[in-house]
Amino acid sequence: MERANLVISCPDQPGIVMMVTEFLFRHGTNISSLEQHIEDGYFFMRIEWELKNSNLRDEKSFREAFELLRQKLNMQIRVDFCTRKKRVGLFCSRELHCLIDILARVEIGELDIEIPYVISNFIDASSFVENFKIPFFYISTQNEGYEQRQLEILRKNSTDVIVLARYMKILSENFISNANQPIINVHHSFLPSFVGAKPYDEAYERGVKLIGATSHYVIPELDRGPIIEQTVKRIDHSSDPKNLKLVGRESEKEVLSFAIKKHIENKLVVYKNRVIVFQ
Amino acid sequence: MERANLVISCPDQPGIVMMVTEFLFRHGTNISSLEQHIEDGYFFMRIEWELKNSNLRDEKSFREAFELLRQKLNMQIRVDFCTRKKRVGLFCSRELHCLIDILARVEIGELDIEIPYVISNFIDASSFVENFKIPFFYISTQNEGYEQRQLEILRKNSTDVIVLARYMKILSENFISNANQPIINVHHSFLPSFVGAKPYDEAYERGVKLIGATSHYVIPELDRGPIIEQTVKRIDHSSDPKNLKLVGRESEKEVLSFAIKKHIENKLVVYKNRVIVFQ
Amino acid sequence: MERANLVISCPDQPGIVMMVTEFLFRHGTNISSLEQHIEDGYFFMRIEWELKNSNLRDEKSFREAFELLRQKLNMQIRVDFCTRKKRVGLFCSRELHCLIDILARVEIGELDIEIPYVISNFIDASSFVENFKIPFFYISTQNEGYEQRQLEILRKNSTDVIVLARYMKILSENFISNANQPIINVHHSFLPSFVGAKPYDEAYERGVKLIGATSHYVIPELDRGPIIEQTVKRIDHSSDPKNLKLVGRESEKEVLSFAIKKHIENKLVVYKNRVIVFQ
Amino acid sequence: MERANLVISCPDQPGIVMMVTEFLFRHGTNISSLEQHIEDGYFFMRIEWELKNSNLRDEKSFREAFELLRQKLNMQIRVDFCTRKKRVGLFCSRELHCLIDILARVEIGELDIEIPYVISNFIDASSFVENFKIPFFYISTQNEGYEQRQLEILRKNSTDVIVLARYMKILSENFISNANQPIINVHHSFLPSFVGAKPYDEAYERGVKLIGATSHYVIPELDRGPIIEQTVKRIDHSSDPKNLKLVGRESEKEVLSFAIKKHIENKLVVYKNRVIVFQ
Repeated sequence: MERANLVISCPDQPGIVMMVTEFLFRHGTNISSLEQHIEDGYFFMRIEWELKNSNLRDEKSFREAFELLRQKLNMQIRVDFCTRKKRVGLFCSRELHCLIDILARVEIGELDIEIPYVISNFIDASSFVENFKIPFFYISTQNEGYEQRQLEILRKNSTDVIVLARYMKILSENFISNANQPIINVHHSFLPSFVGAKPYDEAYERGVKLIGATSHYVIPELDRGPIIEQTVKRIDHSSDPKNLKLVGRESEKEVLSFAIKKHIENKLVVYKNRVIVFQ
Repeated sequence: MERANLVISCPDQPGIVMMVTEFLFRHGTNISSLEQHIEDGYFFMRIEWELKNSNLRDEKSFREAFELLRQKLNMQIRVDFCTRKKRVGLFCSRELHCLIDILARVEIGELDIEIPYVISNFIDASSFVENFKIPFFYISTQNEGYEQRQLEILRKNSTDVIVLARYMKILSENFISNANQPIINVHHSFLPSFVGAKPYDEAYERGVKLIGATSHYVIPELDRGPIIEQTVKRIDHSSDPKNLKLVGRESEKEVLSFAIKKHIENKLVVYKNRVIVFQ
Repeated sequence: MERANLVISCPDQPGIVMMVTEFLFRHGTNISSLEQHIEDGYFFMRIEWELKNSNLRDEKSFREAFELLRQKLNMQIRVDFCTRKKRVGLFCSRELHCLIDILARVEIGELDIEIPYVISNFIDASSFVENFKIPFFYISTQNEGYEQRQLEILRKNSTDVIVLARYMKILSENFISNANQPIINVHHSFLPSFVGAKPYDEAYERGVKLIGATSHYVIPELDRGPIIEQTVKRIDHSSDPKNLKLVGRESEKEVLSFAIKKHIENKLVVYKNRVIVFQ
Repeated sequence: MERANLVISCPDQPGIVMMVTEFLFRHGTNISSLEQHIEDGYFFMRIEWELKNSNLRDEKSFREAFELLRQKLNMQIRVDFCTRKKRVGLFCSRELHCLIDILARVEIGELDIEIPYVISNFIDASSFVENFKIPFFYISTQNEGYEQRQLEILRKNSTDVIVLARYMKILSENFISNANQPIINVHHSFLPSFVGAKPYDEAYERGVKLIGATSHYVIPELDRGPIIEQTVKRIDHSSDPKNLKLVGRESEKEVLSFAIKKHIENKLVVYKNRVIVFQ
């Protein structure tokens, strides 16, 4: 069944749901899901509908018809008619569990995405990635100008989102800005604890009893971006940093694949460095 | 801020959300939350709104004004203007952790309910309950006619819901029918596993690795009613049935207080022996 | 069945388990549980045994007989013949869920302890505590010298451990030193995140997806002490700080009662600001 | 560091730990971990030690030296000098998430095993498996005699354990007996609930609020074998059977890889249809 979805955010006022649903009703749609959230006098909603009896068959005609109401309610909107697979660019380094997990989910049909490239600052993943018929680009970060080479690949391969699957190199503000698309990262701790490169060692030192992972959108401030998902696993005193790393991997895979899925389904809205996650 | 809420269920068709929200808008309300669910061609929705600018100030005037639309969409509705505390009747036996947990939550303001009576087939809880200034009725279930005596107390003390806080006596079909109100039970297992009186012993024998609890509405078939909430805790081979019981208590308290809270907030809808739990 | 238990820590070397179990065997005990942990070249063990056929009937005779081996292996030991209930001093303020939870667990026999006093800097808990026939001391922290008055109560009522059941006042280094016994605190966040007085507000601002609590031993540095237990609950974008507080309470109760239970069972060993938790 | 480990079970009596550790000490080992469990008058222990200063360098010399004590205490033992990778035979059908998860864990070094074959009653997995240079055998279960063909492959490829990675065909008693090695299965429900082929549909019908998975040893009675590990994930009323299946997959992968890891590390003991899981 063909579906489209719309995410809106606007100042709250009485009648928003009525006006938006009236618009959709008038154009022959049947709503299959609707979620709203109000915060701080601001209104957020995601609506999904079946296209079959609708006279709005594509994004362009929808946007034209909706424009008047959009302006009236001062809405920001994101609309998706799901006409093509989302394209996801992948970055990785030497820890490959997240990368392999994503490729496996594509393989078995759980993640319905296209992956035009994998970029890595290490060669380790090359044969595994190439088995999946995905172009692999080894770009060492030892040499100057490596971000230019990365950006070139991005320019030649348009994507909807970039996913850092345990890519262990900090992105420059310039790269983030020029990538010109959302970037999702997985951090191997329960943020805001243990920012930085060695969270499992720090977690061990502090003697925490749960070990976690966080997926978040990237902003220029390291590990400070809006959190999409977090999870933790129980550990105990017998777990040394090496064990923590093994346990943590499970959480890393979980939160990263969750974030990708929600992002490509148009279910994430960032508001004031917090993420609204629609179901 | 004064609020009212409405839960509806009806056959699905295009335009329901629009018509209901249009009605509310026309009567001057501002919607503060809205959730919907569609299943099997059936539509469910819970809406909550602020009363302050509305011309529908009480349930009666709401029902009158809403009746036309209700009939048109063939809706079943439950509406709550939250004008008084919900009244909850409690039953218990000898295991008092659930009972005490509920009373404690009332004490600290977490559960905003009135408890007109506690009925028990054992005397154990009496002094504890009376410390809370709640009438305690000891009705032995050894003697015939005990359900008649219970029903008499129910008749003299109208309540919105009865909660079985580890009451270890099966209710007769006659009692359930004459109580004439929803009854919530907590079962000390992760249903449908381990129906009956000795779930922890059976769980031990089977060697499960998680131990759970379930809150559910009571129907005449034992432990078969619609499930409201479930949770589990991890155990291991070193846990004997006595340990399982201790661990399980934590889950029992959690799922029972959750169920009470959701029920009195008008957030539960039973459909085909499954429970829709609005947030 | 009467039991005793012993916790040892010493530099690791071959033969420790053999020598300790040989000692216990020679004195007629039957070991009912034994756990060990090795870390950093250091050895930790907890052994529990049945007294019935043993010729070491009390702590004094045990210590005398064990002294030679203790010195030979350079052990620090803690031994408990479980001859009396452990005594726990309680501190609280205005949030009473942890306090009530502890009293409820004592009431139903889950925590087998004596509580000689509850000290609070607010009057709120007084009638509840007195219902349990426990002396309640209201000592305002607005006035100077309040720690002296608290210490006086401690002097008159010896206890094995002090438990801060959401006591919202920082203990001075002087108090900690003069209390002269372990102090267990519950912090309303997943440490090391959100140190300080307003963790739920900070957690909301940061947009975390899980909300936690931590029980730990108190050291002079605020919220820096060795962590005994942590747990988290899932939240989402619809949870405002008030909701977080409600959800967090469940975790607070869990981790604090866990810590008390483990402490009085002689199952906690602090090593380098980390806590070994025996089962 | 080279290590060996020993798992023993025997009737409980005073002095077992002493005698076994004395034996190991006398032969120059240093114990790196020791866990014991007592149940029903029966004693279980797993000990791991460093080989470096020991005069017992292989299983044969260990068994000879240990035999006297073994007989004296009436022990059943399993000893492992970890001289080679464990060999694991894999069976799968059309749902490949568990299979791929296992191969991915081998790829990144998390599971240190050899996989001499993958047997499937469907062709789906063939190219994926062959990418990993593992022999793939497609044996349709439509035709008679298919178990004979499977057993032939088993005979030509000795393995330590067989793992059913969502193999959807019931093994005959004859196969189980002739396979002549432990068989680990993953069942897609929280056993003992929802035995059989359609657990997710049944879970949906029953309206459970958590969805689980179970890894267990196979015995002739379907889904009745000793449980190794279980886990659950939260679902809600909006999850249809298709969603449950997706959520459940995560648990299936977790519990199956856990079971394999524990089995090959010699950490599982079956006693009375329950599994002791050493850490």
